[in-house]
Amino acid sequence: MDRPISRKSFFKNAAKYGAGAVAGVAGVNILTSKKSSAETSTYPWPYSKLDTEEVRIVAHDAYYKMGCCYAGFVGLIIPLQKKIGEPYTSFPIEMMSYGGGGIKGWGTICGTLNGASAAVSLTTGRKESGKIIHELMNWYSQSMLPSDESYAYHKDGKYEVRKEFGELSKSISNSPLCHPSVTRWCNESGFTIESPQQLERCARISGDVAVKTAELLNSHIDNTFQSTFTMSESTGECLSCHGKEQEVGNALSRMECAPCHGDPHK
Amino acid sequence: MDRPISRKSFFKNAAKYGAGAVAGVAGVNILTSKKSSAETSTYPWPYSKLDTEEVRIVAHDAYYKMGCCYAGFVGLIIPLQKKIGEPYTSFPIEMMSYGGGGIKGWGTICGTLNGASAAVSLTTGRKESGKIIHELMNWYSQSMLPSDESYAYHKDGKYEVRKEFGELSKSISNSPLCHPSVTRWCNESGFTIESPQQLERCARISGDVAVKTAELLNSHIDNTFQSTFTMSESTGECLSCHGKEQEVGNALSRMECAPCHGDPHK
Repeated sequence: MDRPISRKSFFKNAAKYGAGAVAGVAGVNILTSKKSSAETSTYPWPYSKLDTEEVRIVAHDAYYKMGCCYAGFVGLIIPLQKKIGEPYTSFPIEMMSYGGGGIKGWGTICGTLNGASAAVSLTTGRKESGKIIHELMNWYSQSMLPSDESYAYHKDGKYEVRKEFGELSKSISNSPLCHPSVTRWCNESGFTIESPQQLERCARISGDVAVKTAELLNSHIDNTFQSTFTMSESTGECLSCHGKEQEVGNALSRMECAPCHGDPHK
Repeated sequence: MDRPISRKSFFKNAAKYGAGAVAGVAGVNILTSKKSSAETSTYPWPYSKLDTEEVRIVAHDAYYKMGCCYAGFVGLIIPLQKKIGEPYTSFPIEMMSYGGGGIKGWGTICGTLNGASAAVSLTTGRKESGKIIHELMNWYSQSMLPSDESYAYHKDGKYEVRKEFGELSKSISNSPLCHPSVTRWCNESGFTIESPQQLERCARISGDVAVKTAELLNSHIDNTFQSTFTMSESTGECLSCHGKEQEVGNALSRMECAPCHGDPHK
């Protein structure tokens, strides 16, 4: 079935109602006797340019504490707690542990992307966060990961935990989802899902995703942000018949089509 | 390729490191001069049994303000702000708007599930939240939604916005992902993705998911929680060859296999 589809009207409609919710929260706050710093802070929260090597260390380390989603989030937020203090120090960062393994092992959205996207939203707001999250998701889906830098860092950097694994296999996920991303890497590397190598692979990607996000946020605050990633060639072919009006992606999805749907012309 | 796979060791390993992260945050807090209520609250935050009709109203309304992920989260959290106050009133709830349309229209995890799972994590903690999130995800994947109650509510309840749509078509998503969930409903109903009917369908499901989550959280605090959903029959067949050691789901995924992989025996 071929239908013309647009996400634009959805976002346009949704945006219209944005102001109301903020007013609603303020109304609730009147009922409480005490005001914290977080309460009086306006979303989005302030951002200050981050050192990407610090971000990598925090994210990699955090993976072994509470998993990939926590790591993608605190890779940005713990450095901001140190640089800015409140309201970041009030955020219950452990909440984000729920997203590990594509949300408690369900294999849906890669936890590093879920956590990092939440951090992008918190620091740039609802309107600005979209272009940054699109860039991050496209980069993740189309890149060989974990990166060379994630290994070099463990070889020469100060944080040397698990350097014993040395260089690990790389793979392109073609998807922002946990299940295809991890499965492709396991097929490429020959390591199983529960292996220490697979955990280290995801720890390194936690660092890679947090660093990429910090680079995007740094360029955003410098007004030098530029989108560079677009849909894959094969998805472009699908959209030539099945999709309209999207810059990236397909019907209610910016994901690539083939990883789930295959190529119907073959 | 057939490999024995276990998520247990992942969660076991990840749990070992949990205490360290909390200590790390406490260390950061020392650097700040002011302590808010949220800062001194221990994760998870306190939960108080919620009125499910209030939850439905808040979630449905919130969908039209900032989308499905925001709705799934604040359907629980705004009522808790009213009942408990701090630390809930300090939470930057608008952050959760990033998850709309499976994270900014990417079609990955259904935003209502992403937001509700974050709320489950916040209110029950890392260890307890798993069984509740599994139940929620299975229920969503296997239920005809939106529910009769979501319509009856709009027919007879106090909150009458958009009751003009009357009864809407229902569908089973067979997946916790946004893209297959919405696509199946559009195919079933004949409405397109940008239609007011599709938006209302997702608003009603925001209410359904928030209510289901509140019911699960209420039963959890009453110590009457029981798991009832399991994997589908077809996924059970897949796992008889390809999966081991999982109670629900497959390799690094608890999702059903067939919606993406099809049936290789046909």
